[in-house]
Amino acid sequence: MALIVQKYGGTSVGDGERIRNVARRVVATRQAGHQVAVIVSAMSGETNALVALARELGGEEPNPREFDVLVSTGEQKTIALLAMAIQQLGQDARSFTGAQMGMVTDQAHGRARIHSIDAALIRSVLDAGGVAVIAGFQGVDEHGNITTLGRGGSDTSAVAVACALEADVCEIYTDVDGVFTTDPNLVPAARKLDRVSYEEMLEMASLGAKVLQIRSVKFAMRYGIPIHVRSSFHEGEGTWVVREEDVMERLVVSGVTYNRNEAKIRVLGVKDAPGIAATLFGPLSESGIIVDMIVQNLSQDGTTDMTFTVPRDDYPRALALMEANANAVGAARVEGDQDIAKVSVVGLGMKDHAGVAARMFQVLADDGINIQLITTSEIKISVVIQEKYAELAVRALHRAFVEQGAAEPVAES
Amino acid sequence: MALIVQKYGGTSVGDGERIRNVARRVVATRQAGHQVAVIVSAMSGETNALVALARELGGEEPNPREFDVLVSTGEQKTIALLAMAIQQLGQDARSFTGAQMGMVTDQAHGRARIHSIDAALIRSVLDAGGVAVIAGFQGVDEHGNITTLGRGGSDTSAVAVACALEADVCEIYTDVDGVFTTDPNLVPAARKLDRVSYEEMLEMASLGAKVLQIRSVKFAMRYGIPIHVRSSFHEGEGTWVVREEDVMERLVVSGVTYNRNEAKIRVLGVKDAPGIAATLFGPLSESGIIVDMIVQNLSQDGTTDMTFTVPRDDYPRALALMEANANAVGAARVEGDQDIAKVSVVGLGMKDHAGVAARMFQVLADDGINIQLITTSEIKISVVIQEKYAELAVRALHRAFVEQGAAEPVAES
Repeated sequence: MALIVQKYGGTSVGDGERIRNVARRVVATRQAGHQVAVIVSAMSGETNALVALARELGGEEPNPREFDVLVSTGEQKTIALLAMAIQQLGQDARSFTGAQMGMVTDQAHGRARIHSIDAALIRSVLDAGGVAVIAGFQGVDEHGNITTLGRGGSDTSAVAVACALEADVCEIYTDVDGVFTTDPNLVPAARKLDRVSYEEMLEMASLGAKVLQIRSVKFAMRYGIPIHVRSSFHEGEGTWVVREEDVMERLVVSGVTYNRNEAKIRVLGVKDAPGIAATLFGPLSESGIIVDMIVQNLSQDGTTDMTFTVPRDDYPRALALMEANANAVGAARVEGDQDIAKVSVVGLGMKDHAGVAARMFQVLADDGINIQLITTSEIKISVVIQEKYAELAVRALHRAFVEQGAAEPVAES
Repeated sequence: MALIVQKYGGTSVGDGERIRNVARRVVATRQAGHQVAVIVSAMSGETNALVALARELGGEEPNPREFDVLVSTGEQKTIALLAMAIQQLGQDARSFTGAQMGMVTDQAHGRARIHSIDAALIRSVLDAGGVAVIAGFQGVDEHGNITTLGRGGSDTSAVAVACALEADVCEIYTDVDGVFTTDPNLVPAARKLDRVSYEEMLEMASLGAKVLQIRSVKFAMRYGIPIHVRSSFHEGEGTWVVREEDVMERLVVSGVTYNRNEAKIRVLGVKDAPGIAATLFGPLSESGIIVDMIVQNLSQDGTTDMTFTVPRDDYPRALALMEANANAVGAARVEGDQDIAKVSVVGLGMKDHAGVAARMFQVLADDGINIQLITTSEIKISVVIQEKYAELAVRALHRAFVEQGAAEPVAES
């Protein structure tokens, strides 16, 4: 007997028939002898409808506290309906709102962070043979105000509940079969990974393979809870996200990801002195603009060029801030470019394999793709290229590293 | 400066534009220098949609606990939207779910009774100059399970909050102008009452003038909170429901009501012995069938006839129970009739005025209407007649007692 936490997203509970499907799956797991806690999102479309109402009555920036009171009704609806559907199959079930399960968060409405979960109540339902049906995405602050974790927060709720219950696995049900080596829409040869490490998943999630919310992966990594990403449409195994040492087949590159939603800003001729970077990036940070890649090169004349990327939506704001700020750092000029794409290869195996970067650059060069920026981490190499080459680059890198590379796994060090 | 509790029903908050109207009204009251707590229902249509979902997934009798989790989202949605709309007008506001305001009830899901309200939190919002926006219809039991008060429970919530806050008045906004002397659709000469006593209102509400939920009137009466029933569509005064001594113009009859949703059952030749009534009505009570009028006549042969009315929906069940039970009480026969209507006259003035019953019977006789049953209380006389005479009887009684009687108020005793 295992303790299994299952999470179903909005599409999986999108209408009555789908909720009944989820109920059947939950009951089957229970009947196989496992304890089950289920986390659900709002029915698909529900949250958007609530957001539209909020805009109608609360304007462009509705009061964050009331916004959370409003949108949290979406998940509350789903837990009641799923609990009923499970009961109709003859299985005891009990629903929990964020408040009822003691999911205490900080007060940051719309992007709250979880402080603690009171697992005792959930456990008492499980121990009595029942299924706990839990609202994802929501909690309460210490004063009982309703908070939400932000879009995709249901993944985080699920992993947090799994950690609090010390579950054997956290199953994330989704409309894809698992985590793929790259976007299957772009590369038909993309293949599903059986196992991937938390670290690789973090790099892939943050780079645009949007299967799992990044916070949930961090949570699971910290507590060592295995995540199983799988399809809600069939019974087949998906992808297990586990500790590095539990990944059997260590590939040099386990994923090729891309991101076309960034823009590049370059500040030229900056005086190379301590504190310059802080002066440059301070205003961006205060404006809530998230900077992704940062690359600095020293010029021969003792000045430096600083290049960085920001989300494309924030590009005009970021550029204006930089231009206003250029004098303060004695910069000669500010340039920007939205016509870029970031392409990355991710893999635990590259730690032990020096040749990955060289091979990556060669593959791109072979197709005539110029590299504008490079950043590297232990298990990731990212390059910025002209946007029009994005698909070509992803296909070429996938062919070189995954389709051919898969045949030659690197030996464990 | 007064402390005013306002309650708006589902029609008054039926869409965005109506919610904005309510917000304007609330803010106007606040700007007039009053403290305001607002209780709202679910947007009209919302509860029915949720009930339909519950039936789809929970069957004919969905789990009562989960049903309350589901339907309580309706009011939660409205409080968030109304709070936002009030804030958009530059007025501070804060919403409260049943749990957040400490509305503790018993555990009777779907028909819970209020135990207590923690008014301190609401009061702190009011004292800080804000408007409290409160979900009607919902509370929590002592374990934090969500409960609902049953349909129309928002009136009860409003009066309970008014009592807890020791409010100066509880305003119930509705789509009619107030409480009328009879159904204006039936009798064009029906007129709005300026003031009516709690006792009269109770008799009228229970008899079918469905303006105010009967439990809310009892609550207000116990705590002496004046209720002002008024239109949400214009500013004019409605009807004040107040203590008997605050009703200035004491009419003999202040209302003529009717009810066509009952059926009559007669048990003939019952042995007249102690415990017979209990034996007869026990099974009805166990089946949750509410008996309204009960009339007993002693026959000359030492047996008795017992006649009573039940809701028409429960008539087949009640009749079957009585037939099964007839032997146990030695009854000769059971008869039933669905083709009836109950017509009542209600008025504080009749306490001091012996002639009302005689005049009522004469008015009906003049129109050839046969009386099947009569029951009386201190301030009410009810008769059962053939259903087809219902309108005729109401018009005749209204003409005799209200249109003519209004000109001759009875002197205070």
